[in-house]
Amino acid sequence: MATTSSEKTLKDLFVHALKDIYYAENAILKALPKVISHVKHAELKKGLTEHLHETEGHVKRLADVFGELGAKPASVRCEAIEGILKEGDEVISEFAASPAGDAGIIFACQAVEHYEINRYGTLLAWAKELKMAPVAKLLKATLDEEYKADDKLTKLAESGENREGIVKTAASAAA
Amino acid sequence: MATTSSEKTLKDLFVHALKDIYYAENAILKALPKVISHVKHAELKKGLTEHLHETEGHVKRLADVFGELGAKPASVRCEAIEGILKEGDEVISEFAASPAGDAGIIFACQAVEHYEINRYGTLLAWAKELKMAPVAKLLKATLDEEYKADDKLTKLAESGENREGIVKTAASAAA
Repeated sequence: MATTSSEKTLKDLFVHALKDIYYAENAILKALPKVISHVKHAELKKGLTEHLHETEGHVKRLADVFGELGAKPASVRCEAIEGILKEGDEVISEFAASPAGDAGIIFACQAVEHYEINRYGTLLAWAKELKMAPVAKLLKATLDEEYKADDKLTKLAESGENREGIVKTAASAAA
Repeated sequence: MATTSSEKTLKDLFVHALKDIYYAENAILKALPKVISHVKHAELKKGLTEHLHETEGHVKRLADVFGELGAKPASVRCEAIEGILKEGDEVISEFAASPAGDAGIIFACQAVEHYEINRYGTLLAWAKELKMAPVAKLLKATLDEEYKADDKLTKLAESGENREGIVKTAASAAA
């Protein structure tokens, strides 16, 4: 589309953001197995493995969104997710072997989840604004799963049992 | 500190994350004036200008946190914020001159806010876990301001009056 910058509309911005999150979901899909391989706590490993399968579903759902728009799935390089994943990789390299390893992995994964929640939230608001109900429904389904994944990570970091396994171990080692 | 990777504790992870957000706040401080210069809607310009001043306060507050730990403020390059800001810059370059310009700016700024909310939230949880009450109090003050800044952006994107100015204009241009 040869629209100049001054002609661009909310629909164009929506499509840009859609290509951006499509890139991001694929990058996450590629990065997650390595992250999971470093997890020590069984519950965290299980949760992230489930989220890996959900992420495969998110990629497919985005392809359906492109389909609703009469377009083929396409990406624009998402600098944000590249930076978030690179930072996560650094934290995991530095802390994975330590008592703070799983806390570091949760720290890295929640940055990813919050980015996705923000992006899907905005895409959903724009889809409603643009009166694209079927698209909004697809985006809402993924947004709900991202919220649940983030809640699970928070509970793993904070709940009694897992706190023992994750944060408490690390904290007592720090004392 | 010559701790090897396997000896690292939650306190080490806390200090790493503190240096990371200190880098990020300084990067945001540097990036915001250019973002503000592209804003068309008066209320959004006012909100972001206020947040610029708040951000100066956040940097000072982080220096106080380092002080509480008996350390001087220090940074580690925050790849996540670099990526988020780079992506924001691209969106602003592509959309700033268009009817979707302010929606694009809110899109870019909310990615920054959500990253900060996530990081300060985690730092606060760890500060409590590590029984650092004065540090927790400082982090909580900034976290509250980040939440308010994000709420303000959401209201600007969604509320009747501003929707006219921001999203509605862009949406009607898209129709």
